[in-house]
Amino acid sequence: MSGLDVATLQRRLAEFAAARNWQPYHTPKNLVSALSVEASELLEIFQWLTPEESARVMRDADTAHRVTDEVADVLAYLLQLCEVLDIDPLAALDAKIDRNERRFPVPEDP
Amino acid sequence: MSGLDVATLQRRLAEFAAARNWQPYHTPKNLVSALSVEASELLEIFQWLTPEESARVMRDADTAHRVTDEVADVLAYLLQLCEVLDIDPLAALDAKIDRNERRFPVPEDP
Amino acid sequence: MSGLDVATLQRRLAEFAAARNWQPYHTPKNLVSALSVEASELLEIFQWLTPEESARVMRDADTAHRVTDEVADVLAYLLQLCEVLDIDPLAALDAKIDRNERRFPVPEDP
Amino acid sequence: MSGLDVATLQRRLAEFAAARNWQPYHTPKNLVSALSVEASELLEIFQWLTPEESARVMRDADTAHRVTDEVADVLAYLLQLCEVLDIDPLAALDAKIDRNERRFPVPEDP
Repeated sequence: MSGLDVATLQRRLAEFAAARNWQPYHTPKNLVSALSVEASELLEIFQWLTPEESARVMRDADTAHRVTDEVADVLAYLLQLCEVLDIDPLAALDAKIDRNERRFPVPEDP
Repeated sequence: MSGLDVATLQRRLAEFAAARNWQPYHTPKNLVSALSVEASELLEIFQWLTPEESARVMRDADTAHRVTDEVADVLAYLLQLCEVLDIDPLAALDAKIDRNERRFPVPEDP
Repeated sequence: MSGLDVATLQRRLAEFAAARNWQPYHTPKNLVSALSVEASELLEIFQWLTPEESARVMRDADTAHRVTDEVADVLAYLLQLCEVLDIDPLAALDAKIDRNERRFPVPEDP
Repeated sequence: MSGLDVATLQRRLAEFAAARNWQPYHTPKNLVSALSVEASELLEIFQWLTPEESARVMRDADTAHRVTDEVADVLAYLLQLCEVLDIDPLAALDAKIDRNERRFPVPEDP
């Protein structure tokens, strides 16, 4: 794991957008659309693969680079959305796992 | 910002899936599909809103909860995908911002 | 094949929306978002299935109904989008197949 | 409206795929993924546009061509999915409008 953290990346993304005057485009609706588009660009890499082929996708350097690049794009729009909506994404996920642990109890051993 | 970090959440997600024997479903292809589906569930909340309405989405407690919940789901599948593919999401985004800074230079003042 | 045609269905959809005063919501951007959301609801049905399970999806009556319902939703938004943008979807597809036949020539027998 | 019909286009699509030996890739799950990816490529054209800009999208010849091309791709995968699942898309939509008329009754005049 890198020493990077989410807050630092959100600051870099905010400065990047501000320097290019892109904030007017960054309505929550537009950011959510962009997030969904990037998630589909990730899916496009996998759409014709068998489950087995999909498990080997990082062995090819070009494909590995494309996957990593699309992962970055998804995360970029997710963090920018969280910034404009004032959502803490890590706290949101932590709370969601708590809820899911109650919703899907671990099956007990017989 | 919470004191949470990405690695801790990835560990919680991995333990959650392992305890329920869900790993066989977590092929990269399936996780990417699920990520894309969750991003669309987020989009569904915004699809009929004007840009102005989309900016006020967190003022309604119910909608704010739904948005936060879907953000958590998107992040959950993104982190699980990164885990199975051995991608560091924060490093991927940091490198992507570097590339974008070269690709989209800041316009100079006249 | 039913005796229905695309033009008749587009007229029904337009009358349905007009009777409920939904046209203000039907900007091209919103219709495209809704189309994308419905396509993902279709994907949600398949996201955890193996390729083999996905081929048997119509054998279960409930799942068959859900799939058919989501197919209808995708087509509904696609036809409404074509209506507001004045695109003939069948002519668009016919022209696209022509282009694809030139782009992907049939491999010759050895 | 062109004199084309859905059945003719489905036959062209099936022959196109068969001539290139693409049928093994056309599992329902893969076709649904591709449909969802194409819907997102359509959304990508609109993601940064205001509602007003989105209404003028066909005035620019290049953008009009891109939109028409993506509409064709969405329809192509929808029809191929319907072919492999033996769904009649027009009948599915007709039945769905019937259901929606009962679900969303027209508001009566006061």
